Amino acid sequence: MRAVIQPDPSNTAPDSLQVGDIPRPTPGPGEVLIRVTAAGVNRADTLQRQGNYPPPKGASETIGLEVSGHIATIGPGVRDWKLGQPCVALLAGGGYAEYVAVPAGQVVSPPEGIDLVSAAGLIEVAATVVSNLELAGLQRRDTILIHGGAGGIGGFAIPYAKHLGARVISTAGSEEKRQHCRRLGADVVLDHHEDWAAGVRDAAEGGVDVILDIIGAKYLHDHLKLLATGGRIITIGLQGGTKAELNLGLLLAKRASIHATGLRARPVSEKTAIVNRVVEKVWPLLVNGTIPLAQERRYPLAAVADAHAHLDSGEASGKLILTL
Amino acid sequence: MRAVIQPDPSNTAPDSLQVGDIPRPTPGPGEVLIRVTAAGVNRADTLQRQGNYPPPKGASETIGLEVSGHIATIGPGVRDWKLGQPCVALLAGGGYAEYVAVPAGQVVSPPEGIDLVSAAGLIEVAATVVSNLELAGLQRRDTILIHGGAGGIGGFAIPYAKHLGARVISTAGSEEKRQHCRRLGADVVLDHHEDWAAGVRDAAEGGVDVILDIIGAKYLHDHLKLLATGGRIITIGLQGGTKAELNLGLLLAKRASIHATGLRARPVSEKTAIVNRVVEKVWPLLVNGTIPLAQERRYPLAAVADAHAHLDSGEASGKLILTL
Repeated sequence: MRAVIQPDPSNTAPDSLQVGDIPRPTPGPGEVLIRVTAAGVNRADTLQRQGNYPPPKGASETIGLEVSGHIATIGPGVRDWKLGQPCVALLAGGGYAEYVAVPAGQVVSPPEGIDLVSAAGLIEVAATVVSNLELAGLQRRDTILIHGGAGGIGGFAIPYAKHLGARVISTAGSEEKRQHCRRLGADVVLDHHEDWAAGVRDAAEGGVDVILDIIGAKYLHDHLKLLATGGRIITIGLQGGTKAELNLGLLLAKRASIHATGLRARPVSEKTAIVNRVVEKVWPLLVNGTIPLAQERRYPLAAVADAHAHLDSGEASGKLILTL
Repeated sequence: MRAVIQPDPSNTAPDSLQVGDIPRPTPGPGEVLIRVTAAGVNRADTLQRQGNYPPPKGASETIGLEVSGHIATIGPGVRDWKLGQPCVALLAGGGYAEYVAVPAGQVVSPPEGIDLVSAAGLIEVAATVVSNLELAGLQRRDTILIHGGAGGIGGFAIPYAKHLGARVISTAGSEEKRQHCRRLGADVVLDHHEDWAAGVRDAAEGGVDVILDIIGAKYLHDHLKLLATGGRIITIGLQGGTKAELNLGLLLAKRASIHATGLRARPVSEKTAIVNRVVEKVWPLLVNGTIPLAQERRYPLAAVADAHAHLDSGEASGKLILTL
C-alpha cells in the first residue's frame, strides 16, 4: 500500500518525507483495518519526522495520529463495526497511509453532517483538549490561559472552554490571528511578541486558574507567577523547551500543581474512554456550530513535504489535512 | 494571658522564645475561645520562629498550629459547642498561649480514650496526611515513598497508607529510626544517608505512584526519575530547598504531576471539611490502635526554647508537646 516513508534517517527536513510502498497491516484481535480517506497533520508529526517523538512500543513506525475513512477489515472479536462504515480514529501512529489497523475502541463514527475529509482533523485535538480540561478540573467562572489561540489546539480550546463557562485569555502572534481568537470567543487576546505576562496580570487580578500550556520550559516561571491560589498548569507541548527552574516555594504558597500529559502512549482502555467522551461532549458542539470547524488546508498525500514545511514555518493557522 | 513571645526580632534562635504577657483574644462571630491544655510543636513553628513562615493575613502572630483544651467562651452564632467541653483545634496560629480564638469549624472533639495532652499533637499531622493522600488519589496497591518515616508526618503517614492498602517505602537516618518505621508497617526502609534512590529503584520496579515529599528541591530530580507512569509528587515541606531544575519532558513522558500544598493559609471552609474527615477517618484508627500514638516529649510552656532546640537538632523522633 502507499504510505509516507522517510528513507534517509539522516535527513529530518520536510522533504525527507516521500510516498513509498509498505505492507498493508493486518488487524489483530480487537482491531479493525481502516481504508483511509484523509489523515490529520499534527505538530507531533513534525517532531516525529525530526526524530524527537518516537512511536510508543508496538505502534506503527509510520507517522500519523488521526484518520477518517471506512472500515475495510474486521479483526477477531470486534462486534461494533460493519464493513464499509465511515469512521474516524485516534491512532498511536500509522495514519499517513492507505490503510491503518487500530484497536476498535479508538474508532468512532464521524459527527453527523461533517465532510469525511474534514472529520480526519478533529479527534486528536478534541481528545487532547477534552481530556486535559478534565484533568485541570476547569470550572464555570474559572479563568484559563490558552496560548496559540489560532493554532489547532487553541482554536478548539477557546470555544470549548467558553462552552464550559470559563473566562478565556488567549495569545497569538499576528493581528489577524488575534481577530480570529476574538471571533472564537476569547475574552482577552494578547500579542505573545509583547509582554503578554503583564497583559495576563492586568486581565486576571487574582491570577489564572488553569493554563493550557503548549510552551513548557520557556514560560514555566511566568506561568507559575500568574497562577491563582489552587491553580493548575497543564503542559501538553514543549515548544519552548523541556528544562527550567521550578520554584517549589512559590508552588507551595499557591497550593498549585503542574501536570504534563500526552495521549499517544496511553493504554487503549484510556483512549477508548476519552474518544467516547469526545463523541458525547464534542460531536454535538461541532454539529450545532458551537465549536466551528477550523480553517483547512488540504494536501494530497504526495505533497506531505509541503504540508510539513507549512506547519514548520509557524505561519499555519487552522488545520492541515492529507487526502489519500 | 501567658503566651510565647519573641521580643527581639533580630534573634531567631530557639532561645529567642520567651513566655510573656499578651492580651487574651476575644472570639469573633463563628469562633470559640479555647483554654489551652497543651499545644503541639511542629516544624512549621521553627520556620516561623526563624522568620521564614509568616502567619497568613488576619491570623495571630503567636506561634502554634494545634492545641487541645476546653471551650472557654462561645462567640456569636456558634451552636455546636458548650462551655467546658474538651476539644482539639487546627489553627492558623496562636497555639502557644493560655487561650486561643479559632473558627468553630476547625474545632473537634478529641478521640475517645486519648489523654487530652497527647491529643494536642494529633490534628495538624492527621489533617496534613489525610488531605494530601486524598490529593494524591492514593489507591490500594499503589506504591508510596515516605521520607522521614520516624518523624511526625512519616510516623503517621506510614500506618495510614498501609491502612489504605498501599505498599510503603520509607527512609530514615538511623537504625533505631528504621526499626521504628518497620514496626509502623513500612514494607521497605532505606537509609537516607546512603543511595536511597537506588534502593527505591530496586524495591519498585515500575516506579512509585505517590511521593509524600517533605524535602523539595534537593530531591526533585530523583523523585521525578523514580515516579511511575501517572505518578504524583506531593510536596508538603521544603527541608531541601525551594529551587530546582524541572525536566518537563520527563514529567510529560510519565504523564506525571507535581502538587505543592500547605494547610495553614486555606480558607476556614476547607479546613472545616478536612478536620471533619480526620474525625471520621482517623480518630477510629487512633482509638483502635491501627495508628499508634507517636512517642512523646512534653515540655512546660516555659521550656519552649528547649523544645525548639530539640526539634532543630534533627535528633527528635515522635512528637513534642507544650503543656500549659
